Amino acid sequence: MKNKKGKLSVVLLSGGLDSATVLYLAKAKGYRCCCLIFDYGQLHKKEIYQAVKIAKAAGCVYKILKITFPWKGSALLDRKIKISEKIMRRAPATYVPARNIIFLSFAASFAETIGAKAVFIGAHSQDYSGYPDCRRKFLNIFNKMVQAGTYAGPKILAPLLRKNKSQIISMGRKLGVPFALTWSCYRGGKTPCAKCDSCYYRAKGFKEAGLVDPLMKR
Amino acid sequence: MKNKKGKLSVVLLSGGLDSATVLYLAKAKGYRCCCLIFDYGQLHKKEIYQAVKIAKAAGCVYKILKITFPWKGSALLDRKIKISEKIMRRAPATYVPARNIIFLSFAASFAETIGAKAVFIGAHSQDYSGYPDCRRKFLNIFNKMVQAGTYAGPKILAPLLRKNKSQIISMGRKLGVPFALTWSCYRGGKTPCAKCDSCYYRAKGFKEAGLVDPLMKR
Repeated sequence: MKNKKGKLSVVLLSGGLDSATVLYLAKAKGYRCCCLIFDYGQLHKKEIYQAVKIAKAAGCVYKILKITFPWKGSALLDRKIKISEKIMRRAPATYVPARNIIFLSFAASFAETIGAKAVFIGAHSQDYSGYPDCRRKFLNIFNKMVQAGTYAGPKILAPLLRKNKSQIISMGRKLGVPFALTWSCYRGGKTPCAKCDSCYYRAKGFKEAGLVDPLMKR
Repeated sequence: MKNKKGKLSVVLLSGGLDSATVLYLAKAKGYRCCCLIFDYGQLHKKEIYQAVKIAKAAGCVYKILKITFPWKGSALLDRKIKISEKIMRRAPATYVPARNIIFLSFAASFAETIGAKAVFIGAHSQDYSGYPDCRRKFLNIFNKMVQAGTYAGPKILAPLLRKNKSQIISMGRKLGVPFALTWSCYRGGKTPCAKCDSCYYRAKGFKEAGLVDPLMKR
């Protein structure tokens, strides 16, 4: 950690613009941030490389943790499932069962071990596909669970929970988030596909914020 | 799964006698069991091989999931930490930060994906070292968290929660648990060390149950 002062925190960093904004927000609030990046078998591996670039740009240490979901069950993990398909009755195809629960659990373990009191996550209430593990209710109970199930009880903080995409982009701009390094597209091509849910909401967010997405400049 | 009838479940199997008893109990209750075994960097790797033998003896399918705790922070993961040391203010050295939270999170993901309604864990209220992630309070909140954070909301069941070690051994004997295949020692030697906490409580349990531990026969 380059900044020796400040409270220690773990920041879940996906490579997307929400978590990048949270990282810059945590830094602005005086936290020393250890970024936790997951290589979980996602087909859009590009987001991992982008997450590393974002951590470096922010001057923060990072750790890439490799985990697997051998049972797959998501379009993000299995080429046989189409991104637009519904695989469970109510779940979008891009839902990875219990993914955030697992990410936050590892982050809590990391935080407890290094003595960090806070874990930051970029979930927001309007998380486009309505994943249950992004909702306020879930995060509240997760927090209580960590208090009960660990000695140190690090706190899970989701400062974007009340924000929508355009508000996050406006906030990120003020904080100096390097949007050109962020990656949202579920298809990890050279350029964003501009078709998947994630691309759609990113484009909508930039438009509503009155800004140009540096990834879409020609 | 050899038994095609019965409700599907995921059973966390460690290789110890508690989880083996839970597996046999779940089977006796008519569940089809998919065992989930973790290779999490534990120094006593022997328990993994024993868990596989137990799953096979029970006629159940199993999956070994490799995960890592690169931040270590436990005597079970780091040879530099003595098993008897206290590393955090209140935590025993064998406590692995948030380990059960992570195990149960993966089990919930597995269960949701395969459509299993139940996840079994061998936690018991007297879990010798007082790990916070074995307590009733924690498991209750974890259950609520899974209901809030997944679509399918598999239920976490800990049928040994009110039992002590000798009661578990008595129960396991009636269920036909192959105790000779179970492994409890934190030191993964050829024979149990007979010195660590885990060996101590196993020996005490067998004695109180009026049974002979097949591992200790000479």
